[in-house]
Amino acid sequence: MSALVNAADVPPDEFTLDDWSRSRLDQVEQALSRWVTAETPQGLDHGAPAQLVEAMRYAVLDGGKRLRPLLVIAAHEAVSAQTQRVHCEAALRSACAVELIHAYSLVHDDMPCMDNDVLRRGKPTVHVQFGQARALLAGDALQALAFELLTPMDGSVPPAMQARLCALLARAAGSAGMAGGQAIDLASVGHALTEYQLREMHQLKTGALLQGSVMMGAHCGEPQAPALMALQNYGAAIGLAFQVVDDILDVTADSATLGKTAGKDACHDKPTYVSLMGLEASRNYAQELLLQAIDALNCGGLSDAVALHALADMVVNRAS
Amino acid sequence: MSALVNAADVPPDEFTLDDWSRSRLDQVEQALSRWVTAETPQGLDHGAPAQLVEAMRYAVLDGGKRLRPLLVIAAHEAVSAQTQRVHCEAALRSACAVELIHAYSLVHDDMPCMDNDVLRRGKPTVHVQFGQARALLAGDALQALAFELLTPMDGSVPPAMQARLCALLARAAGSAGMAGGQAIDLASVGHALTEYQLREMHQLKTGALLQGSVMMGAHCGEPQAPALMALQNYGAAIGLAFQVVDDILDVTADSATLGKTAGKDACHDKPTYVSLMGLEASRNYAQELLLQAIDALNCGGLSDAVALHALADMVVNRAS
Repeated sequence: MSALVNAADVPPDEFTLDDWSRSRLDQVEQALSRWVTAETPQGLDHGAPAQLVEAMRYAVLDGGKRLRPLLVIAAHEAVSAQTQRVHCEAALRSACAVELIHAYSLVHDDMPCMDNDVLRRGKPTVHVQFGQARALLAGDALQALAFELLTPMDGSVPPAMQARLCALLARAAGSAGMAGGQAIDLASVGHALTEYQLREMHQLKTGALLQGSVMMGAHCGEPQAPALMALQNYGAAIGLAFQVVDDILDVTADSATLGKTAGKDACHDKPTYVSLMGLEASRNYAQELLLQAIDALNCGGLSDAVALHALADMVVNRAS
Repeated sequence: MSALVNAADVPPDEFTLDDWSRSRLDQVEQALSRWVTAETPQGLDHGAPAQLVEAMRYAVLDGGKRLRPLLVIAAHEAVSAQTQRVHCEAALRSACAVELIHAYSLVHDDMPCMDNDVLRRGKPTVHVQFGQARALLAGDALQALAFELLTPMDGSVPPAMQARLCALLARAAGSAGMAGGQAIDLASVGHALTEYQLREMHQLKTGALLQGSVMMGAHCGEPQAPALMALQNYGAAIGLAFQVVDDILDVTADSATLGKTAGKDACHDKPTYVSLMGLEASRNYAQELLLQAIDALNCGGLSDAVALHALADMVVNRAS
């Protein structure tokens, strides 16, 4: 497998996020296509039933901004530039693993018993395309596959790193992370929340996996304590910012731009930052979180964090 | 945490499965109750939302034969008696992790879009009790929690062992294991299958996690190659036997004895061993698989495999 291009190869003054992302996204897309397969994939033991894999590929491939994989790779590059410990195979596997967790959460979240959404990334949702039973199983299998990717049995990732990456991903995905946040979300429909409660919900529902992506990437570079602390704070800030901006876009963007149904939070009477603090204050809050994220990077002694900086900017100032 | 009692403490001629199981099941039940919790559990980082944990506990606690945890523990004891490498904490965590995977699969399998079952272990199923959305999320969170249990960050399990246990569990649970088998099952309703196809489906759907339980227990004892091969064959035989007996019980036992709806395979026009080869031949086949399992143990140089022997016998000769 070819090494991921290091951001250090590009002089900072010529850096653009598009250029930086392109080669990395190519590798992530190719890796996802290679690992989510009915063939016996490289580094895994068995093939899987074709009809299940068809739904898994539909859920994962050709769609999404791949923010989480990019965060993994950017954090790995920032830390490894400092420590000179490069584990590109671990970073690529982590990048794909977090995307599989994200993809499975969307599949389940779209199901009729949850958000009952029919459109995702401009395509029919998985249960519309393949039926609810297959969507349920595809989501379940995607979660397991994420942990398969993190635990190659071919020696390509050091065992202690495998264990740490599994630990981080499981906690980001589970009852005290993403799944827990979704449960709070579910229970909160039609209820007024305080800002504290809203923040707690989003820290789990969206923030945990975004922060987890940053931390997994960092651990692929064997970080020192100050860098780890900086990236933890960075991850927390952009995790929250992502959701604030999501709430803003839900009321300001149209479905075609979003690639999913706009306005559904208000329609479902869900508490959001916009409903709590208004549109203008939400926009200001998002910018404040961006500054917090940048501050955190500056405190961590990460001299080569230009991609993380640009990703934070993209999270806050995106149009969809 | 107290050490698991070693089967070697009990002279083989006084061994009974009930006695052997009792203290081990006590530890498993206590550990499950401690780890599936809204409090911040020992060795984990966070608490989880109470309403989600309520459904998770309902799905996991006070029910089931705990066959998979007992297989983990018996395999660990058999191997560690040979290697003198005892990792009781790893074995207990593995025992609970496989049970969480099993429990989540039942929660999702019972949902209306799958088997639509209302009774499980004599209680209303999770979606009947808590609604479909919470059942879906509880299952998702239980899968993640299984990997949390395998990756304690307190140094209580060696990192390389954590990685190996995660690798085994992810493959047993995923698209080339349990979830894959359920997908084949789903696609096979109303179709005639050959014995080869039926065996393949069951090897994935039920066999993979049963065999995975044996292998995880074995790896907690740092096995040598002959023992590993023996336990792999043992696990394959009892995995298949379990399903053959399940198919037999579905037509011969009543719902009260099973704790779930009897006769549902025929009702759903699902292919089974009984529908394929008839009741008598199915019974003979189950006994043949029991002999294969015992043969495998005898070949592995495992002098202290009395509990594994008894568990194989229980799998084949159980009444529910």
